[in-house]
Amino acid sequence: MPTFASALVKETLEEYGAVARAGLEHYLKRGEPRRHLYDLVADYPRRGGRSLRASACIAAARAFGGATAEAADSAVALEILHNAFLVHDDVEDESEIRRGKPTLHELHGVPVAVNVGDALAVLSIGPLISNFKKLGPGRALRVLEEAERMARESVEGQAVELGWRRDNAVDLRVEDYLMMILKKTCWYTTIYPCRVGAMIGGADEIDIDRVTRFGFFLGAAFQIQDDLLNLVGDQKKYGKELGGDIFEGKRTIMLIRLLQVAPRAERARVVAILSRDRRRRSATDVAWVRGRMEAHRCIPFARELAHGLAGAARHEASLAFAHLPRSRDRRFLEALPLWVLERT
Amino acid sequence: MPTFASALVKETLEEYGAVARAGLEHYLKRGEPRRHLYDLVADYPRRGGRSLRASACIAAARAFGGATAEAADSAVALEILHNAFLVHDDVEDESEIRRGKPTLHELHGVPVAVNVGDALAVLSIGPLISNFKKLGPGRALRVLEEAERMARESVEGQAVELGWRRDNAVDLRVEDYLMMILKKTCWYTTIYPCRVGAMIGGADEIDIDRVTRFGFFLGAAFQIQDDLLNLVGDQKKYGKELGGDIFEGKRTIMLIRLLQVAPRAERARVVAILSRDRRRRSATDVAWVRGRMEAHRCIPFARELAHGLAGAARHEASLAFAHLPRSRDRRFLEALPLWVLERT
Repeated sequence: MPTFASALVKETLEEYGAVARAGLEHYLKRGEPRRHLYDLVADYPRRGGRSLRASACIAAARAFGGATAEAADSAVALEILHNAFLVHDDVEDESEIRRGKPTLHELHGVPVAVNVGDALAVLSIGPLISNFKKLGPGRALRVLEEAERMARESVEGQAVELGWRRDNAVDLRVEDYLMMILKKTCWYTTIYPCRVGAMIGGADEIDIDRVTRFGFFLGAAFQIQDDLLNLVGDQKKYGKELGGDIFEGKRTIMLIRLLQVAPRAERARVVAILSRDRRRRSATDVAWVRGRMEAHRCIPFARELAHGLAGAARHEASLAFAHLPRSRDRRFLEALPLWVLERT
Repeated sequence: MPTFASALVKETLEEYGAVARAGLEHYLKRGEPRRHLYDLVADYPRRGGRSLRASACIAAARAFGGATAEAADSAVALEILHNAFLVHDDVEDESEIRRGKPTLHELHGVPVAVNVGDALAVLSIGPLISNFKKLGPGRALRVLEEAERMARESVEGQAVELGWRRDNAVDLRVEDYLMMILKKTCWYTTIYPCRVGAMIGGADEIDIDRVTRFGFFLGAAFQIQDDLLNLVGDQKKYGKELGGDIFEGKRTIMLIRLLQVAPRAERARVVAILSRDRRRRSATDVAWVRGRMEAHRCIPFARELAHGLAGAARHEASLAFAHLPRSRDRRFLEALPLWVLERT
């Protein structure tokens, strides 16, 4: 039975997701070249996502006193950029499945996929330009600055993670992981939506640091839950290869924990598996690593960390949104930490 | 002996190139992550280029009555984005050498290189944001719109070219080629610099279409000359693999011409070579294709086309810049068509 939180979140995601999808259609609908560009640009967005990021942005703007129409373009820019990241992430991670279908580079080759990701990034600028007409130069420029910061944090986080894999880093701490996902995930998934929403809707006296902390804790819980779903989720619902993170050598919190607690010989075997090229990792390797994660209780460890972070997000929400009028949008933001833990 | 045109261009490129390089250092100098990101972000820019694009932007702004300081950020944004394109183009073309050294993905792998290209694209937004302080919201927004258009044209042109290779297109016409390089090369190499320079320096009554045509003809002559240098140039000066375009199956005007004029059996062999994977093309294949290009006078054909385009650019310059006061910057712009043909 769905909880109250999950019903509210689902309903809001559906409503604001429709706004975001309409905006995406508008900004992604271009003419030629169709077959090698604009048809492919629209592929990932049309595979359907939850539009969590766009919805959080619209809800935050409304909770802080703004209107949907004022936030829509900033939300759409974010969704387009999110899809740009997905296309390039899939190339960088050599992922095979995205949202239940083959990844773009599996379908069309790496060169075309890299260019499609670039095109999506370029197209994300359009709605940020539109903001100048709708919000005036002051607020539009602040949103543009936020978007630049968010994109910069994201490529920095991605660089840290790719560097770990390239160097086969095996002595990572929980705090290294949190710093990496702060940049790679939280900035664009939760911090930008909340900050930009607050800027669009609110007055200047908003305590933006508090909003940022809420976004960080929420985004971190989200990322850990995402990594857990990759290990223990339902492949059909999840839309990616289960255990794919282990195949890819991705430094999840479960892997970091395993490297911390595994006995010497087991740890050496994990390190050896990680040091191999992805194509030389076998299903047996992946199953063995997964088994060791279970044996050493790495999955409950990750789950507890996600719960702790979601709790911190709830606490920050109670401070960051306390002065706002009661509204469905405020309740939606407050419900997100619980929803993040419940989602499958 | 250098001509007057080439001496003037060389001197101007050195002066404005120094301005651009200082700006690049400013905008690319960031902290961590250093080894897998910011050191690599600075790699291609530090290998040294001519800063043609930035210099043209500054010169155009000055010729139209603006100051170097007003144009510097728009020029720097362009140079940064140019380097972003180079990194991704090298991945997409599987190029091995850039500016005399191994390409970024050869040195650090495709995943890191894709992310470094993304980072450069993000960093190109910084100077466009700075424009709002220096130029005010009106002009800064126009430059931002130009940058978005330019980047969009570039990814569209890239998509056309990648599509041709993916589909092994062999029935291309000269006009298909010109349309492709209008988007892929001219917009960011010559059209944006001239348009943005004119916008920054000039009054609103500028005939921007005339400036655009000048940029198109100039950029097209530049691209054809670039393709010629890949075939007949001096590898050390050129900084890429000679004949690399044939290896990559790049649809240059020489290749398009060869496919038009080669006798049936020869044409079939060219098509067969092009249909193979790059790694299955041999040095013998490349030498044979190159020999056929010589036998069928494809190189003089390309040279004549470049001359015709440069002549058209000179004509457009005489109309587009006629009303401007005489200045070194105006002479520089007028000298570019000849310089493009002379460069080695």
